[in-house]
Amino acid sequence: MTAPGPILTLTSDFGTADGYVGAMKGRILSIAPAARLCDISHDIAPQEVLQGAWCLRRAAPRFPDGTVHLAVVDPGVGSPRAGLVVETERFLLVGPDNGLLSLAAREAGLRRIYRIRENPPHWHKSGSFDGLTMFAPVAAHLLLGKEPGACGELSEEMVELPGQASTRRGNEIHGAILFFDRFGNAISNITRPDLNNAEPGKIMLNNGEEAVYCSHYAALTDLRGRVGAIWNSDDHLELALFSDSLRDSRRIHAGEGLRVLVKKESAP
Amino acid sequence: MTAPGPILTLTSDFGTADGYVGAMKGRILSIAPAARLCDISHDIAPQEVLQGAWCLRRAAPRFPDGTVHLAVVDPGVGSPRAGLVVETERFLLVGPDNGLLSLAAREAGLRRIYRIRENPPHWHKSGSFDGLTMFAPVAAHLLLGKEPGACGELSEEMVELPGQASTRRGNEIHGAILFFDRFGNAISNITRPDLNNAEPGKIMLNNGEEAVYCSHYAALTDLRGRVGAIWNSDDHLELALFSDSLRDSRRIHAGEGLRVLVKKESAP
Amino acid sequence: MTAPGPILTLTSDFGTADGYVGAMKGRILSIAPAARLCDISHDIAPQEVLQGAWCLRRAAPRFPDGTVHLAVVDPGVGSPRAGLVVETERFLLVGPDNGLLSLAAREAGLRRIYRIRENPPHWHKSGSFDGLTMFAPVAAHLLLGKEPGACGELSEEMVELPGQASTRRGNEIHGAILFFDRFGNAISNITRPDLNNAEPGKIMLNNGEEAVYCSHYAALTDLRGRVGAIWNSDDHLELALFSDSLRDSRRIHAGEGLRVLVKKESAP
Repeated sequence: MTAPGPILTLTSDFGTADGYVGAMKGRILSIAPAARLCDISHDIAPQEVLQGAWCLRRAAPRFPDGTVHLAVVDPGVGSPRAGLVVETERFLLVGPDNGLLSLAAREAGLRRIYRIRENPPHWHKSGSFDGLTMFAPVAAHLLLGKEPGACGELSEEMVELPGQASTRRGNEIHGAILFFDRFGNAISNITRPDLNNAEPGKIMLNNGEEAVYCSHYAALTDLRGRVGAIWNSDDHLELALFSDSLRDSRRIHAGEGLRVLVKKESAP
Repeated sequence: MTAPGPILTLTSDFGTADGYVGAMKGRILSIAPAARLCDISHDIAPQEVLQGAWCLRRAAPRFPDGTVHLAVVDPGVGSPRAGLVVETERFLLVGPDNGLLSLAAREAGLRRIYRIRENPPHWHKSGSFDGLTMFAPVAAHLLLGKEPGACGELSEEMVELPGQASTRRGNEIHGAILFFDRFGNAISNITRPDLNNAEPGKIMLNNGEEAVYCSHYAALTDLRGRVGAIWNSDDHLELALFSDSLRDSRRIHAGEGLRVLVKKESAP
Repeated sequence: MTAPGPILTLTSDFGTADGYVGAMKGRILSIAPAARLCDISHDIAPQEVLQGAWCLRRAAPRFPDGTVHLAVVDPGVGSPRAGLVVETERFLLVGPDNGLLSLAAREAGLRRIYRIRENPPHWHKSGSFDGLTMFAPVAAHLLLGKEPGACGELSEEMVELPGQASTRRGNEIHGAILFFDRFGNAISNITRPDLNNAEPGKIMLNNGEEAVYCSHYAALTDLRGRVGAIWNSDDHLELALFSDSLRDSRRIHAGEGLRVLVKKESAP
């Protein structure tokens, strides 16, 4: 195989029917004709920065070194909020400074944060669609080899999403439901390292129910309608029902708490 | 970077779950193996030619010169309506003759219109799925370098979408809501050139409300629930609410009128 | 044009917003950097194996020889159900052994079935997300040229989807509605070869209505609300209404029967 072009992924809450995403793709390919575009998602719920941040955190680290990840979920478009280029140990992130990039950046080893310069010639801040006028051209120029430092000023900090970590109180881990996935499963912020890689002990939901720990999805079939809990592919504790949506069949909401008893410790 | 293959974009109302779009992609790649496929949208609402036409008009002109844009939103499939190849100054459009291609063609500088020949060998008109049997192979052959004139007969006209332009009456521009985007914002047919690039004066909606002109989205935060109006990235006047869907919270519909007072003239 | 990289298509019920599909794409490109990814669909209804199987059967055979088709609709993830590599005369299929691959495999000429080995080093069976940990890496290694036989053990059989064929009783073909497409049209399992390529005779629906045979979609306009029947692009008999959804306007459901009188025989 010949050496392939560099990869640029796209994540947004634009949907596709309005043509905004198509416009961004066209702009990128006009600047960097060899770019290999790869859609991550354009179905992030409108202005749901947290969902976008988790989507990006799950997907971005799997891509080859040097990939540029462009993400736009941006309730503050047109405001003075900055645009960022974030350099991690293995890839670059481009998008608004509202937390959207922060989970993937922390997961992948944050190196440097740059606030995108707002003066031309190659891009400009827009009143309504920075994705097209600023983020797309910045990402395309990075793909062409432009240094992140040539795109903006080094910055000490960026907006981070709060409340993503669980807390330990004595023998209990106190966590929360982060969000529901497409199948209605609830992803919590309790991770396998939080329990030192041990099996969870008693798992109590906010509604008084106890969830049953399962080592794999198929074990849910034996629960006869009780809620199961499983380590998902990102090592987060996930709550699920067999062949049913937990979101639709229980009064459980994103943001609600859950508690896990630490049963025993084991080697990491 | 090595010279990349030519780009072929796809726009349709097919959704993806039925496999129609996958079938078209497979057919194209079988004819033109080096084609670089780029999805614009497959989520155009079923048979909504106007939405598809605006999606294409927004996206197509941003792509590199020589791109082939294939679009199928086709309530008249199986009828005698013609298929078209439309040549503009910078790109080619392929799709049904029902107005779908007309907005992008006019925006980009229409050059020539060809009515696709319906005789084999390389494609044929179908009773049910011209996208697969005719439009996809025509687009693929164009990508391989076939001349538009070898695909069909030169034609003087095509179906155009009516009512896309506003009108001026004395000191007022009379326009209409064209459609709502995913965020529930209303895009009107009143453009910045319609006002000679001046700021809009008083903006009156059909329901009696007055919309407040904002120079950027973030200024909507100061309106306390009143409707804002902004020039969008295509220089159309767009009506929006802060962090809310105008479509869902007002009795405003696509097709309804609005009036803008011309305040003052300024240089273009 | 230069020789393009090999094509890998993706079909799933994951949606895109959760980042699962993005994670799979990243994994594939990390293993096979020159892979050309092509989305077929990620909007298969959750856990609807039949819909996924038909989507794949419609799309996969249109792609160039040598394409690898990766498909994951997998209610049994985490259970002992096997993963498969299926070799057909023209392409490879990778996915769970639950019938998802069977329709495309039969359509394209099944050659050999391999049950994916579950031992490392290059992939492993997961408790929750085989798409990422097993199917994506297997597909990527096939793209790199790994032999199917090096991925698993030869198997005599796979799970097949039942009830996909119509039956003949005397002068009648007895079939069923397989599913509805995005436009609300009902696709049946009665095929043109079932009728020896002849026009259908009287077409009786389960609700007592008679459907009118049309040679093309546009002829539906003349039916004044009666149900039309047409051969679709896969040569299946499809029931449709003019500019309306049959699913929404009639009491007809997937799985319901219909009968077609064999009018006359003609050459195939």
